[in-house]
Amino acid sequence: MRKIITLLTDFGLRDHYAGVMKGVILGINPDAVIVDITHEIRSYHIYEAAFKLRSCYSYFPEGTIHVAVVDPGVGGPRRPLAAEAGGYYFVGPDNGIFSAVFESAGNPSVVEITRTEFMLDNISTTFHGRDIFAPVAAHLSNGVSVLDLGITVPNPVSLDVPRPSAKGGEIRGVVLYADSFGNLVTNVPGNMVKPDMTVYAGRYRIGPVKSSYGEVGRGDLLAIIGSSGLLEISVNRGSAREVLNKERVFIRITTR
Amino acid sequence: MRKIITLLTDFGLRDHYAGVMKGVILGINPDAVIVDITHEIRSYHIYEAAFKLRSCYSYFPEGTIHVAVVDPGVGGPRRPLAAEAGGYYFVGPDNGIFSAVFESAGNPSVVEITRTEFMLDNISTTFHGRDIFAPVAAHLSNGVSVLDLGITVPNPVSLDVPRPSAKGGEIRGVVLYADSFGNLVTNVPGNMVKPDMTVYAGRYRIGPVKSSYGEVGRGDLLAIIGSSGLLEISVNRGSAREVLNKERVFIRITTR
Amino acid sequence: MRKIITLLTDFGLRDHYAGVMKGVILGINPDAVIVDITHEIRSYHIYEAAFKLRSCYSYFPEGTIHVAVVDPGVGGPRRPLAAEAGGYYFVGPDNGIFSAVFESAGNPSVVEITRTEFMLDNISTTFHGRDIFAPVAAHLSNGVSVLDLGITVPNPVSLDVPRPSAKGGEIRGVVLYADSFGNLVTNVPGNMVKPDMTVYAGRYRIGPVKSSYGEVGRGDLLAIIGSSGLLEISVNRGSAREVLNKERVFIRITTR
Repeated sequence: MRKIITLLTDFGLRDHYAGVMKGVILGINPDAVIVDITHEIRSYHIYEAAFKLRSCYSYFPEGTIHVAVVDPGVGGPRRPLAAEAGGYYFVGPDNGIFSAVFESAGNPSVVEITRTEFMLDNISTTFHGRDIFAPVAAHLSNGVSVLDLGITVPNPVSLDVPRPSAKGGEIRGVVLYADSFGNLVTNVPGNMVKPDMTVYAGRYRIGPVKSSYGEVGRGDLLAIIGSSGLLEISVNRGSAREVLNKERVFIRITTR
Repeated sequence: MRKIITLLTDFGLRDHYAGVMKGVILGINPDAVIVDITHEIRSYHIYEAAFKLRSCYSYFPEGTIHVAVVDPGVGGPRRPLAAEAGGYYFVGPDNGIFSAVFESAGNPSVVEITRTEFMLDNISTTFHGRDIFAPVAAHLSNGVSVLDLGITVPNPVSLDVPRPSAKGGEIRGVVLYADSFGNLVTNVPGNMVKPDMTVYAGRYRIGPVKSSYGEVGRGDLLAIIGSSGLLEISVNRGSAREVLNKERVFIRITTR
Repeated sequence: MRKIITLLTDFGLRDHYAGVMKGVILGINPDAVIVDITHEIRSYHIYEAAFKLRSCYSYFPEGTIHVAVVDPGVGGPRRPLAAEAGGYYFVGPDNGIFSAVFESAGNPSVVEITRTEFMLDNISTTFHGRDIFAPVAAHLSNGVSVLDLGITVPNPVSLDVPRPSAKGGEIRGVVLYADSFGNLVTNVPGNMVKPDMTVYAGRYRIGPVKSSYGEVGRGDLLAIIGSSGLLEISVNRGSAREVLNKERVFIRITTR
């Protein structure tokens, strides 16, 4: 069975950085199947990477190795990690990029990568994606176990994830980010929002949750439970980010 | 023989949407070979997707499964389709995205996908690419036949494709879209344009068709038969879209 | 052993051009492993392509076939080339795109591709990536030898690469390009720069070379040896291109 290795980075697609990681992987495991999740995370936005990885990691077959590299601390004291959680493997820097996944999958087994025989011979101080994370992922795909890569880390770095609050019949949340359609993805789980509730985004009254985009007119705002299971603010055949003229708005959901 | 599944969407590359479709496919058929055609169709531009798919589908080996998802009607009444035409397979929404291909390949066999055992267990209302089209394509690649996926559709949605007109020694056409080099791709088939004809784009006299970019000076406009077999307006080492300052111009070709 | 074919072009990702090359390759060698290096070279910037290819080709396994197509002269008299150098194969136009690689690998064996049986049946004048270079790469991956593809070329086109100068304790260089993080990659090899030297970029005094981004404050400029082994001007968690407000600056390194 060919092993899948996914890549999620902020390297962009204009440079050779994502491609060279694939060359390194295929040199170690020629049968690896490499899948790009995205290389267009905004530079250094660890939080966006963490959220997108959590939204998709479990749609891959068990045993998939997810490499995530948004790494502003490269070359400094931050630790390189490898982990196993929920039947999946994770490789990347210890800066919180896996904290949403670890919370979702539960009970992660995490090591600091210290064994240099699983890295390239020459380690740059600016590109551990190529020199450490790609080769380690390839060795994992060849059957090396996580615990053989280094020493156990009991306390990987964790991000503060903003959580929705519910009080007095009112839920308050925030927009996490806008996707490329301009959908505003909030931190409010869809199952918190009942059919009799009204959604507000900033100063806009959006209304109750709809079950498809087409339930409102073309160009109109709506609230919908998106594909990640979270409440989203959208525009039918348009961009909510453009209509609201910003990404960062407060979300209020009320039964009144 | 490993089956090829291609993806053509408007999902962009900043999000995890294209990647998660690949995870779903590989979970059902680990041997599938997945090829991105593009994920950068302009949001909701079904026509652009239809044209680009028609320009490339037949360069893939017979039996290739082409998944095309530009789907503003997702979650509404529009039908999910699977089809076979000219030795190729097609999976996507019933909104005309395949009409140029069906016209080119001829005699399509089309079904509405109704059999839920070939979809994911939970179907969102916003992301049928992941929940319906990716798994259906993977099952097709495993040998499921199109007719097993649902019920025959005699009348898939068809787009109105603008056609060139020829009258009194003059051909009139339109620009379909500009590619990323700024070449303006028209709807005029190359074989309609004879060597003694003169091409006009808007108020510009372009001249007779050239056989390579280098036949005009650097920065000069020219007319050429492009790689899709259609007349294109181009600039040698430059962008016709920038020189003409717009994408949408009328094309006139005359023997006078 | 499955052969790797990489693609490096200026075709962008909005069109079907990169995807259709993959369809052609897989039709000739269904087992080829295709890796995108980038398709976002700036249109017609041969020099940028040459530099990026040189930075990554040797990280792929020996025997990898690198296809590079930035080809403003397509359809004109420029020759289509195939080559072997340093255990790697190269396919693309004869416009200098391989000159940095040939200089790095040494002793290239280069042919002009003339044998039409290794091309598609119909050769357009605008897309040799699809019609010549993709099929030739696929045939190479099937075991065809470079020398069977055409006639030996003793003098492939060579680019003038700007070289750093060293005189009187001062090194002078230029910025080759900015990567997508805004790092300014110079033409000065890292091993020319000694610890007691001071780096200047334009009118900015950057200081001595640092060994990681985190050695300066967030938003501060620094000089560092980048992942290609060249001196780079960077900003910790920011973009040097934005801070310096341009890409093209002169670099001066002095012991005084």
